[in-house]
Amino acid sequence: MEKLFSHLDVLYGEIVEIRRHLHKHPELSFEEVETAKYIAEYHRKLGHEVREQVGGNGVVAILKGDLKGPTVALRADFDALPITEENDFDFKSVNEGVMHACGHDGHTATLLGVAKALNKLKSELKGDVVFIHQHAEELPPGGAKPMIEDGCLDGVDVIFGTHLQSQVPLHEIHYRNDALQASADKFVITIQGKGGHGAIPQETKDSILIASQVVSNLQQIVSRRVNPLDAAVISVCSFDARGPYNVIADSATLVGTARALNEAVRSKIEEEIEQVVKGTCLLSNATYDYTYTRGYPVTVNHKEEAEFVMEVAKDVPGVENIVETEPTMGAEDFSYYLQEVKGTYFFTGARPRDAEDPYPHHHPKFDIDEEALLIAAKILSKSTIEYMNRHS
Amino acid sequence: MEKLFSHLDVLYGEIVEIRRHLHKHPELSFEEVETAKYIAEYHRKLGHEVREQVGGNGVVAILKGDLKGPTVALRADFDALPITEENDFDFKSVNEGVMHACGHDGHTATLLGVAKALNKLKSELKGDVVFIHQHAEELPPGGAKPMIEDGCLDGVDVIFGTHLQSQVPLHEIHYRNDALQASADKFVITIQGKGGHGAIPQETKDSILIASQVVSNLQQIVSRRVNPLDAAVISVCSFDARGPYNVIADSATLVGTARALNEAVRSKIEEEIEQVVKGTCLLSNATYDYTYTRGYPVTVNHKEEAEFVMEVAKDVPGVENIVETEPTMGAEDFSYYLQEVKGTYFFTGARPRDAEDPYPHHHPKFDIDEEALLIAAKILSKSTIEYMNRHS
Amino acid sequence: MEKLFSHLDVLYGEIVEIRRHLHKHPELSFEEVETAKYIAEYHRKLGHEVREQVGGNGVVAILKGDLKGPTVALRADFDALPITEENDFDFKSVNEGVMHACGHDGHTATLLGVAKALNKLKSELKGDVVFIHQHAEELPPGGAKPMIEDGCLDGVDVIFGTHLQSQVPLHEIHYRNDALQASADKFVITIQGKGGHGAIPQETKDSILIASQVVSNLQQIVSRRVNPLDAAVISVCSFDARGPYNVIADSATLVGTARALNEAVRSKIEEEIEQVVKGTCLLSNATYDYTYTRGYPVTVNHKEEAEFVMEVAKDVPGVENIVETEPTMGAEDFSYYLQEVKGTYFFTGARPRDAEDPYPHHHPKFDIDEEALLIAAKILSKSTIEYMNRHS
Amino acid sequence: MEKLFSHLDVLYGEIVEIRRHLHKHPELSFEEVETAKYIAEYHRKLGHEVREQVGGNGVVAILKGDLKGPTVALRADFDALPITEENDFDFKSVNEGVMHACGHDGHTATLLGVAKALNKLKSELKGDVVFIHQHAEELPPGGAKPMIEDGCLDGVDVIFGTHLQSQVPLHEIHYRNDALQASADKFVITIQGKGGHGAIPQETKDSILIASQVVSNLQQIVSRRVNPLDAAVISVCSFDARGPYNVIADSATLVGTARALNEAVRSKIEEEIEQVVKGTCLLSNATYDYTYTRGYPVTVNHKEEAEFVMEVAKDVPGVENIVETEPTMGAEDFSYYLQEVKGTYFFTGARPRDAEDPYPHHHPKFDIDEEALLIAAKILSKSTIEYMNRHS
Repeated sequence: MEKLFSHLDVLYGEIVEIRRHLHKHPELSFEEVETAKYIAEYHRKLGHEVREQVGGNGVVAILKGDLKGPTVALRADFDALPITEENDFDFKSVNEGVMHACGHDGHTATLLGVAKALNKLKSELKGDVVFIHQHAEELPPGGAKPMIEDGCLDGVDVIFGTHLQSQVPLHEIHYRNDALQASADKFVITIQGKGGHGAIPQETKDSILIASQVVSNLQQIVSRRVNPLDAAVISVCSFDARGPYNVIADSATLVGTARALNEAVRSKIEEEIEQVVKGTCLLSNATYDYTYTRGYPVTVNHKEEAEFVMEVAKDVPGVENIVETEPTMGAEDFSYYLQEVKGTYFFTGARPRDAEDPYPHHHPKFDIDEEALLIAAKILSKSTIEYMNRHS
Repeated sequence: MEKLFSHLDVLYGEIVEIRRHLHKHPELSFEEVETAKYIAEYHRKLGHEVREQVGGNGVVAILKGDLKGPTVALRADFDALPITEENDFDFKSVNEGVMHACGHDGHTATLLGVAKALNKLKSELKGDVVFIHQHAEELPPGGAKPMIEDGCLDGVDVIFGTHLQSQVPLHEIHYRNDALQASADKFVITIQGKGGHGAIPQETKDSILIASQVVSNLQQIVSRRVNPLDAAVISVCSFDARGPYNVIADSATLVGTARALNEAVRSKIEEEIEQVVKGTCLLSNATYDYTYTRGYPVTVNHKEEAEFVMEVAKDVPGVENIVETEPTMGAEDFSYYLQEVKGTYFFTGARPRDAEDPYPHHHPKFDIDEEALLIAAKILSKSTIEYMNRHS
Repeated sequence: MEKLFSHLDVLYGEIVEIRRHLHKHPELSFEEVETAKYIAEYHRKLGHEVREQVGGNGVVAILKGDLKGPTVALRADFDALPITEENDFDFKSVNEGVMHACGHDGHTATLLGVAKALNKLKSELKGDVVFIHQHAEELPPGGAKPMIEDGCLDGVDVIFGTHLQSQVPLHEIHYRNDALQASADKFVITIQGKGGHGAIPQETKDSILIASQVVSNLQQIVSRRVNPLDAAVISVCSFDARGPYNVIADSATLVGTARALNEAVRSKIEEEIEQVVKGTCLLSNATYDYTYTRGYPVTVNHKEEAEFVMEVAKDVPGVENIVETEPTMGAEDFSYYLQEVKGTYFFTGARPRDAEDPYPHHHPKFDIDEEALLIAAKILSKSTIEYMNRHS
Repeated sequence: MEKLFSHLDVLYGEIVEIRRHLHKHPELSFEEVETAKYIAEYHRKLGHEVREQVGGNGVVAILKGDLKGPTVALRADFDALPITEENDFDFKSVNEGVMHACGHDGHTATLLGVAKALNKLKSELKGDVVFIHQHAEELPPGGAKPMIEDGCLDGVDVIFGTHLQSQVPLHEIHYRNDALQASADKFVITIQGKGGHGAIPQETKDSILIASQVVSNLQQIVSRRVNPLDAAVISVCSFDARGPYNVIADSATLVGTARALNEAVRSKIEEEIEQVVKGTCLLSNATYDYTYTRGYPVTVNHKEEAEFVMEVAKDVPGVENIVETEPTMGAEDFSYYLQEVKGTYFFTGARPRDAEDPYPHHHPKFDIDEEALLIAAKILSKSTIEYMNRHS
């Protein structure tokens, strides 16, 4: 491990350089062509087996260890967001309206650093490492699912990944040996009433009133129908029933998101929304159309692997504090990998050391402390080697 | 007519005396035993054919004119209210908790005066007069319906009646040749949810929430489903779901009243309430029980008779102002008579002449100006004679 | 009158021709340049004093009678609607997307016919006739108000007007001696909540939920706060809070219309809407912006004039049935004239004689029976002459 | 420990006997006079220092060890419930309508057994044991608070307690090193509207409608204003606005319970309820009265002590399974002790071994497997000794 860490310490400058290069040249989800090329090229230079356009713009690289052992996958996402950067960096985004405001540039730089460091230890490596460079995490249906369908997990025994967190203190690691992030689903409800003259309501079925009642009535799903110990969110985020001021709307469309931390709650929400819509429409004799589309599932860490990585992490230089965290209601398509193989996802503290009130993710002034990349790289690579040692 | 009016002028003292006697000895609806006896006795002394216990405590007396002609019914109600009188009259109620606070004492005194006056003109009378002394107007299902079923309208051609109004100026008459008073129906809605521990809502169906939503949702019947030109009222007047502070209620009961000015709206309300309840329950998968009981129907005056009586009234001494009035949302079981025979109901102004802000009906200090009895008596008796003259 | 009617009978062909010409060349509200020229030219040829661009595209023509007497105004509106005609007439609209779908072509043709007929009787005319050809009735703030402000009613003693009705049987006239049409106001409510991530409702103020509650809560104004005998309508016709499916909306905008048949109710509605919005926002600690813009006022006919015109109408050839109608909740800027001078507005039945289920106004297949123009012309011109005779 | 356990094994018959005696003679909360005497007598016989009527019917007994060391408190509650027992035991309740349907008989028998067993080890005991026999756990404000105020925790270093659970498998122990049970508060909301005639809503402020809107609007506190990761319950359990079917209610009273697992949420709920009530009343210009009464606080176990007891428990004969449990939304006044001193509360599985679908607590057929008493006794007494050994 000494060797591993000193390799990474040497590589730190390069990791930072990569990160800044990527930060300067962000690409939107599903449009990450240049970034993918860059990653593939990097691995190719290391002599790794590289597969491009995996499930879209995904890149998979394999480092085969000289010794026999398990296959460990490490994943980093590399898409950016439709945000106009307001930082003053010299490596500020040159793509107007596009920004790495969620740290994926750091994830990718970290993973490339890990790849180079592990590559140097190839002769001692008891197993293979699969580097999953995933596109399109920010935009459901995301890149994880098609990459899995395209075989990125074939032969993989375990998967590890991390997310840099601008609001978690540097040197702090957050983990959870159970559900870490929520599912994120989308629903669309169209109320079909009967339009008409604003002065003659009795000849209409007032879609806006009915849809408004749906919005109010949905509240009781969380407040009354879900176990209070189970987290659940139902947010109607769009209400569209525009029209002239004096014509009662013929139809109204609600669009929203639902979040949960387990599949049972997710299914309950899906059913209960329809029950609420059905009853609310019936009371006005209106009809409806309802679609509930499952987005990213709950990110459920595997207990043993989650605890293993934290056991590894506690002796990694730079790690000062390991915290069992609450789940978050945000979603992450790392969840799909964890449905297929064992593994864990954790948060690496990356709060800029001089920031008292750091900007949140997706903010035009989002920033991270780059030392976090080194810490993340050490945890991921040490976990890989340690895992191989234990399972070979 | 001169003769008629002078008879009545002479009788005025007696009319007032009768009214004060009745005022002093009020009896509740369906318990008007002594009042009925008093009335029957009065008519008997006049030699009228008297039938007692008509449809309950009702009394019907017939004065047969010596000449041939139509049969005219005149109706006065004689029940009192469960109110403790706060007036200081020497004829104040001696029955604790019971009071003639709606003028029925005046109605009855007026009609007895009319009976005596018309009796004196028996030889010239071209037809018969049926005096309908009705019990229980204040308390649905009322006395009118059973009295009709018991034959009080048999052979009757036309019916007239009036209500003294403490808030209409003395010497003013209010009429309407169409719907004058609303229907008054009663509904009972029981929501059957599923009770349970207040800390475990997810295992219950919260009856109080469901019933509360019913109350809110009922508002849209009047605001959206009834023609804005049609008057309609739906009032939930009782919400009963009492229980311990930490046990979710198993069921909740709503009771209320609905008012309308025509049968179509009444039927619409009855149906729409159920639609609202059905949908509101469905959205929580609860069940319900719903009963809608029709009370007094709309009091719809007959145009020709309404206008006839006002034509008569305009030359009656004491009548200074005849006003076509708006309908009221209060109900009156005179409506049942008007469903069977032609006729009209009107309001006789009876505001105490010194009262600037007179007490409303059903108030413990309700009062009337007794001159209104004389005016009402003249209008009713003149209408009777005039009607006979025109239709014989 | 014989002479008058025979003049009109002769003119009928020309009236129809004018109507068809106008129908073929409709112009939108506030854009009626050619129509105005056409009208002005017609009057000029008759030798009438003509004023153009009165309060916009309005035209006022004056026929001065040779004898002394009152000044009677007759009004017809001449704008068309943004509707694509679907009729197959040979005089079908040649202006794509614009159509006389409300009968204003007929109103104008009628009034020009009346002008020519009365012109022939100039020597016997006891007073002056002001022909008010009004633009922009369909689009609030309308043409009536600016025309009045520009003097069109100066010296006028009384005003008459009619609207052709495609759904009232031909030969039938509808009148009302009180409020005939409703006021039509517009309100805009913007709820300012606090946007945020759809998964983190606790850090937001959910504008869509708040606005939805406003919509529901508004129902109780009509159902609970307005006298059930007073007609009132509050319709939220537009709900705009579009956004991504997972971002809670920062604000939401409701737009709607309010209708009433008297000013007191109108003011009450204006106040009560704000009360509902204020309380509903307070319960979520949100803020709001509220504007209530008064549109056309209630069209209140003057009793004496309304009855006068109907007395005149009952002997007009072609009038078979005169009906006292219920008010309608639709609005009309004839209301402004009636606020300034005495007068009346009535409906002339114009149902196509072969139409069992005639198309409503504003329908792409709207049509009228042209005989109605002759009937309307006779009522208006006879009323004018008769009024002059009685008041000079 | 061998000695301890064999003492308890010998005492098991007596423990069962005590439990059955108590079961047969249950007493309601705050009325537990005989039970208290029984307990005091038992301790007195053992030579313990006994204080009666501590904070009400509470009994505190002290066993002073011969050696120096910490003071360990053990608590058992002893009140019963107003339930009519439906079991067929020969030790069935003889007090009609009163039943030990929550296992407090078992708690007390267990603690008395523990007292006798530890008493036998007095000479080796490194510290004192305080036996807190608490009355009135079932009925807020409960017995714990007044007993603490009356000094029951004076000198106490740590407190342990357990609850027998009829639905947790025998031989299974549930623990949690954080919040185990919820706070349970009570709120009362009275809406003051303005009563009036059911047919004249415009002259009233409809309390039932307003209170109904409050019930609906309260839902959004849990669904929108509380962090979805925080458990919270707000249940309106009583709605009282009874009255005649045709009189709009003057006021309406809502009573309910609120639950939370931390103080911040509890305070938030208290504030947000008022915000909702205030806004909802404002929109109808009504007033309100609101009281929020804090009941039992959150039962928050101390991490170190919770883990200590489970470490002890895992080697206790009869303990086969130790489970970290979810919190429950039910409340317990053991919470008050844990606010004063360190300690832990845990659940001892007591499901009758032949019951597949055991009756829940507070059920007329509630039952437990008595072996659970022995297991609980062993865990509590071993924890006491072990704690003393470690801390002396």
